[in-house]
Amino acid sequence: MIEAAVSYAHAHQAEYLEQLLELLRIPSVSTLPAHRPDIQRAAEWLAADMQRMGLEHVQIMDTAGHPVVYADWLHAGAEAHTVLLYGHYDVQPAEPLQQWETPPFEPTIRDGKVYARGASDNKAQLFSQLKALEVMLAANGRLPINVKLLFDGEEELGSPNLPAFIAAHKEMLAADSILVSDGAMVSTTQPTIDYALRGVVSGEIRVSGPSRDLHSGSFGGSVHNPIQALAEIISKLHDEFGWVKIPGFYDRVVSMTAAERSLLRQVPYAEEQWQAETGAPKPWGEPDYTLLERMTARPTCEINGIWGGFQGEGDKTIIPAKACAKVSMRLVANQDADEIAELFTEYVTNLAPDTVHVQVIIHTGANAAVTPFDSSEIAAAMRAYKVAWGAEAVRSRAGGSLPIIATMQQELGIPFVLMPFGLDDNRHAPNEHYHLSHFARGINTAIHYYHYLTEL
Amino acid sequence: MIEAAVSYAHAHQAEYLEQLLELLRIPSVSTLPAHRPDIQRAAEWLAADMQRMGLEHVQIMDTAGHPVVYADWLHAGAEAHTVLLYGHYDVQPAEPLQQWETPPFEPTIRDGKVYARGASDNKAQLFSQLKALEVMLAANGRLPINVKLLFDGEEELGSPNLPAFIAAHKEMLAADSILVSDGAMVSTTQPTIDYALRGVVSGEIRVSGPSRDLHSGSFGGSVHNPIQALAEIISKLHDEFGWVKIPGFYDRVVSMTAAERSLLRQVPYAEEQWQAETGAPKPWGEPDYTLLERMTARPTCEINGIWGGFQGEGDKTIIPAKACAKVSMRLVANQDADEIAELFTEYVTNLAPDTVHVQVIIHTGANAAVTPFDSSEIAAAMRAYKVAWGAEAVRSRAGGSLPIIATMQQELGIPFVLMPFGLDDNRHAPNEHYHLSHFARGINTAIHYYHYLTEL
Repeated sequence: MIEAAVSYAHAHQAEYLEQLLELLRIPSVSTLPAHRPDIQRAAEWLAADMQRMGLEHVQIMDTAGHPVVYADWLHAGAEAHTVLLYGHYDVQPAEPLQQWETPPFEPTIRDGKVYARGASDNKAQLFSQLKALEVMLAANGRLPINVKLLFDGEEELGSPNLPAFIAAHKEMLAADSILVSDGAMVSTTQPTIDYALRGVVSGEIRVSGPSRDLHSGSFGGSVHNPIQALAEIISKLHDEFGWVKIPGFYDRVVSMTAAERSLLRQVPYAEEQWQAETGAPKPWGEPDYTLLERMTARPTCEINGIWGGFQGEGDKTIIPAKACAKVSMRLVANQDADEIAELFTEYVTNLAPDTVHVQVIIHTGANAAVTPFDSSEIAAAMRAYKVAWGAEAVRSRAGGSLPIIATMQQELGIPFVLMPFGLDDNRHAPNEHYHLSHFARGINTAIHYYHYLTEL
Repeated sequence: MIEAAVSYAHAHQAEYLEQLLELLRIPSVSTLPAHRPDIQRAAEWLAADMQRMGLEHVQIMDTAGHPVVYADWLHAGAEAHTVLLYGHYDVQPAEPLQQWETPPFEPTIRDGKVYARGASDNKAQLFSQLKALEVMLAANGRLPINVKLLFDGEEELGSPNLPAFIAAHKEMLAADSILVSDGAMVSTTQPTIDYALRGVVSGEIRVSGPSRDLHSGSFGGSVHNPIQALAEIISKLHDEFGWVKIPGFYDRVVSMTAAERSLLRQVPYAEEQWQAETGAPKPWGEPDYTLLERMTARPTCEINGIWGGFQGEGDKTIIPAKACAKVSMRLVANQDADEIAELFTEYVTNLAPDTVHVQVIIHTGANAAVTPFDSSEIAAAMRAYKVAWGAEAVRSRAGGSLPIIATMQQELGIPFVLMPFGLDDNRHAPNEHYHLSHFARGINTAIHYYHYLTEL
C-alpha cells in the first residue's frame, strides 16, 4: 500500500505544485486588516481542496477572528490511532517589499525553490501533509489511520481565538497525538524532529516626554529625550552576557537533563552553519549554553522594532515627543506567559524615570510546549524520515513558537510530533522560499509516518 | 526721521503681511532634493522684493549648493556704521504632515498668529528686518547707516557652502557688526538679546548585525540584536545626571564667569514656563546648572531619531538586520566641532561590540559663537527694544545654532547682535507659527536699532 501511494505521489507531483502556487498567490496576511478577504479566500480554497480529495465533514468554522478550517477521515476503525493534524494558512506581512527579488505573492520558481511569502511558513509544509492524505485516499481508497485536520488562520497573530475554539470542541478534536509540519530541519540532508517549542510574549514599550517634537537647540540639555530614555530601558533588559535581567524571568525554567543535553549535542549544528544562516559577525548570548541550546532551549528577550523622531535623509534636530519599541520574549517550559508578561511590565515600569512617561502594552502570550523525546510517535516519525530522506533524523528543540501546540496538548492531554520539512527558508523575512525537493520528500515522509503509526 | 518711518510702517502693515504670506507659501525646504526649485523660487522672490524697495547690487549668487541672496545700500557715508544683516530663507521639513492643523505651506491666520512652516524660523523675522529697510527708504529716502544683506538658502542644512562663499567674498561682506533676527525672546513681554549661540555636530550611528531580518524564534538568543546593540551604545552617551560621557567632550568648554551667571539669572525663565513650552513631565539634565543654562550655555548630545525592524501594527517577531539613530550635539565655546566629531566617532566605535558592525557618519559640524554681552551694538539693541516693546531687554544665550555666525565672526572679525523677534513658536515642529504683533514690533525694533547705531 505504501508503494502504491508513493508512486501515485510521484506521478502527480507537477499537479500538486501547481495547486501549491495557487495557494501561495493568496496574500493571507492575518495581521493586516486589509487582507481579511484574502484570509477568507485561502480558507475557502483549502476547504474546496479537502472536499475534492475525499476528506469528510469539511467546514469553515467561525471564531472571533479568522476562521478555522476543519475536516476529518475516521474510517480506520475505533481501535486505530487518530492523528490531529495542525497547520496554518495565514502568513506574515511581506514588508519590506522593496527587498523582495520577486513579488511576495507572485510565486516564482528559480534554482529549485519556490519564492513566496508563506512558502515555507506554513503553506508548503501544510500542503505536503494534505497531499499525503490525498495520495493515500486516491491510491489505496483509504487511510491507514484516522485523521482530523485543523487549519488555523491566526497563527501569525499568536492564535488568539483558537484556545476558546479548542475548549469548545474538545470532543470533535479528541485524538491520540498531534502532528505538525512547520519550522526547520537542521539541513537538507539532516532530517529533524522537534520535541519542544518555545512560548512567546509580545508587546510594546512606549515612551513619551514632551507634548510635541521640540527644537533640540532650544531645549536640548533640559528634557529627557524619549529615545534616550527608551534606549536606557532597553539596555537594562540584558546583562553583558545575554542573560535577561527581568527579575524572576528564569525562576520557573526547567533545566535540561544531562540526557537531553547529550541528545542535543547529536544535532549537527556548527557555528559555520549559524554564520551562513545569519550572516552576523559573531555569535552572541549565554556562554554556558551551546548555540543550538541558546536558539531553542533558553528563553530570550528581543527588540523586534524601534522608532521615534526623524528617520528621513539629512538632519532634523529635534527632541521627539515619543519613541516606541516592539518587544517579544521567547519562553521555555515551565515559564508562564501571563506571569512573564507581568514581570516584564513591572520591571520596565520600575525602570521608568519620572522625567518621561512609560507605558507597556502586552499583545499576546503563549506558553512553551514539550513532549517526551522518546515517545512511540516520535519513533515512528524517525522511521519515516529514514525512508524518505535516507538519513537518521535527529531530535531537537524548535526555537520558534506555535502557541497553540501547548494549548492543544494541555486541553487534549496528548503528545505531539513536530515534523518539519522546511529549512531556514527566510521565514518571516524577504525572499521566503521553499525547496521543491522538500515538497516531494515531505509528502513521502507523511505517507510513511501514517503507516508506521499502525505498528505502534 | 524715526517717527516718519514708524508711521509709514504702521500704514503698510497689512500689505507687508500679504507679502509675508506669499513668501511662506513657497515650500523652500533645503534638506529635501525635491524642493530645489522652491528654494530657487524663494531666492528669486526675495531678490525681486529687495530690488523693488530700492536696495542695490541685488544678486542671486551661486554656491555649490543652494544660492545666496545678496544686496546692499551703502550711501550713509564711509564713516557710518555698516551692518551685515544675515537671515535664511530655507525652512525645515514639515513632516510629520498629519500633525499639522492646517497645511504647512498654506499659511493660515488664527488667534493673531500665522501658522506655516518657516513662519518663525526664519521667514517672518528676516522679513521684519527687510521691511524695516523698506520703510526707512520709503519714508526717509535713505538709511541712517550702511547695510549689506546676506540671505542663506542652506541654514537648515548647517550652511555647508557658506563658509567658502564668505571666505571668497570677504571684501564684499566687510562690515562693522553682524545683525541676525532668528530664535526666540524669553516671552512676548520680555525682549531678549542673545550674545551666544551653540555650535552643532550632527551624524548617524548605524548598527548592522545579521545580513537580513531573522526569525526571532529560530535565532533569538544567539544573535546580538542590532536594536539592542544600538540602545546599549546610546545608553552610554550620558550618565544618570545628563553629563555627556564622551571622553574629552568638556575639555575645551569655557566656564561661565560669575558675572555672566548673574546676568543670566536676570532672565525671567522659570520652570513653569519650561513646563508650558515642553509639556514634559519634569526637567532633566545637569543638576549644577539652571534650566536656562542647560538649554543655552551647556553642550549636549541628543538622539534626534531612531529606527530599525518592524514599526507596523501588531507583531512581527524578527531580529532586524540593522538599526540606525540620528545624533546631534550642541557645542559651546571653545569646543571644536571637528574635534568633537572625532571624539564622538572614536567613543562610539570603541563601545561597539564585535558581535555587530557599527558605523558612525558625521553630517555637519559648526562651532559655537559668543560675542561680548557689553558691546555698544548690544547697548543700541537694548534701547531699540525698550522703545518698541516697552520693556527692558534681557541678555541671554541662545540654545540653538546658527553655524554661520561663528564663521562670519571669525572671517570678518566683528561682533554680532542676535535680535530675536520670535517665541518658541513650534519651530522645527508641526504647527509652527508667528505672532502677528511680533511682526509689527520687529519692524519697529529694527528701525530704532539702525538709528541708535548712528549714536555709538
